[in-house]
Amino acid sequence: MKLIILGAAAGGGFPQWNCACANCARARRGDPAARPRTQAALAVSVNNSDYVIFNASPDLREQILATPALQPRSGLRDSPIAAAVLTGGDVDFTAGLLNLREGHRFALYAGRRILDLIEDSRIFRVLDGGLVPRRELPVDMPTRLADGMGRDLGMTVEAFVVPGKVALYAEDASRTDFGSSEGDTIGLRIADDAGKAFFYIPGCARVSADVAARVRGAGLVLFDGTLWRDNEMIEAGLLPKTGARMGHISVSGPEGSIAAFAGLEVGRKVFVHVNNSNPMILDDTPERAEAERAGWTVAHDGMEIEL
Amino acid sequence: MKLIILGAAAGGGFPQWNCACANCARARRGDPAARPRTQAALAVSVNNSDYVIFNASPDLREQILATPALQPRSGLRDSPIAAAVLTGGDVDFTAGLLNLREGHRFALYAGRRILDLIEDSRIFRVLDGGLVPRRELPVDMPTRLADGMGRDLGMTVEAFVVPGKVALYAEDASRTDFGSSEGDTIGLRIADDAGKAFFYIPGCARVSADVAARVRGAGLVLFDGTLWRDNEMIEAGLLPKTGARMGHISVSGPEGSIAAFAGLEVGRKVFVHVNNSNPMILDDTPERAEAERAGWTVAHDGMEIEL
Repeated sequence: MKLIILGAAAGGGFPQWNCACANCARARRGDPAARPRTQAALAVSVNNSDYVIFNASPDLREQILATPALQPRSGLRDSPIAAAVLTGGDVDFTAGLLNLREGHRFALYAGRRILDLIEDSRIFRVLDGGLVPRRELPVDMPTRLADGMGRDLGMTVEAFVVPGKVALYAEDASRTDFGSSEGDTIGLRIADDAGKAFFYIPGCARVSADVAARVRGAGLVLFDGTLWRDNEMIEAGLLPKTGARMGHISVSGPEGSIAAFAGLEVGRKVFVHVNNSNPMILDDTPERAEAERAGWTVAHDGMEIEL
Repeated sequence: MKLIILGAAAGGGFPQWNCACANCARARRGDPAARPRTQAALAVSVNNSDYVIFNASPDLREQILATPALQPRSGLRDSPIAAAVLTGGDVDFTAGLLNLREGHRFALYAGRRILDLIEDSRIFRVLDGGLVPRRELPVDMPTRLADGMGRDLGMTVEAFVVPGKVALYAEDASRTDFGSSEGDTIGLRIADDAGKAFFYIPGCARVSADVAARVRGAGLVLFDGTLWRDNEMIEAGLLPKTGARMGHISVSGPEGSIAAFAGLEVGRKVFVHVNNSNPMILDDTPERAEAERAGWTVAHDGMEIEL
């Protein structure tokens, strides 16, 4: 399997359009230790020809232009993108679908709650159901991926519920959980027919016992690296929300992902969906060094992994 | 007034993600006569500090990163974008609004039919109404633009109905006009307080007598340059639709925009919203030369005009 990180940043990207924090300012002025990153998405292929994208970031058009493997192969209109799989309903995971209009046939997979959100926004009808079949991804059972014509893609996906939050635009302010429900955020185990497999979990509020049990001993996990500290956006004066409020675990601390993964014997651990406020997004910070000492890599756009 | 062309291409951009036509292939391989262009949008300021964007293309994040005038000025979170005005409901005119989430206050102006379409897609609720007030732009009367707090922006806009079509995702296949109605597409006259004015008409199916009468004698018109010939996409095997079917006039021919503007004594004529199939998008084609001989400029990204 070949993996291409199309985007490694959290919602808003790096730099974020309206953010002048020290990190974004460094990225904007071209500091080599502050590499720009687009919003999180992943492309995977088992044959170097057909690709499945995992999440459709608002930056998808730019990501395709930067990725020769996703450009037309033959014929006048063509795309290697055979299917898209969504792990959440937020803008940074779904809006890029709108870039995939223009008559291309592909399959759209997501959990029921996420498909319902797509259905609820008329603008997504620009992807005609006859060309872009919606397919529900059940949880806790393997699903064989196929393209828009039903052709097998040599990839099996198992979706599972992770602690998360309903999409921001669908929050119900009258409820303490904002109307969140099981299945608003999912994690994925992605496997080929040669027995290679990895986990893609770009959004996750907590490493629950179930998540820990699933990833234990895995060869590769790409995991939510949104914030370094739960309250870093509040402390920096950027946004009055904690990571927990946004449905994202922190990297550091006793409840953080570094600690939670410490005993899980995962072969390769990669942070994706890294927020612009997270000091580990910079190459030259103590936090980056700490993450690397704990065995983690911080993903960057265009990074490729062969399994 | 200062105008910045944020994007000069039609829906899909140039090159288009899934298109391998000769034009897109040249753009993709870096041919200097085939400059890449993002999807059509315009930024205008009367004070070089506050900007109004006209249409929000899916490429807006990329366009902001490429345009220093639209980047944060002071403070931790800031944007010069004080208001957005929409001339249609299609994805290439509206999807970029999703990039403007992240707590920024600005005003959203559009005609009633267009606002209704936004309202109809739950995902746009990511722009909280308390931060991003929706303001109906009436037709045929001047509207003073103000930012999200009601602060005057020194700009007056007059919207008028132009021949057009309902957004693709809202088409009603059971009707011969696809459910199109007056106000699905609007044109704008934009004026400052010093008496400078110009027209922005990025989508228009026909230069009606009303449109002709309005633009006659204008100093500057930015106009729909989608297709060279009405059937060029069919002839090229790209899409089984004419320009008329898509709600866009052609540039050439007796019914085209060059002919229609010939006697209108417009000072400066600029084509925007140019499709990747249009030969005039290339710097070295006979069609580009013909448009220029007729007094037209073909816009490119980053082009600035001072009025």
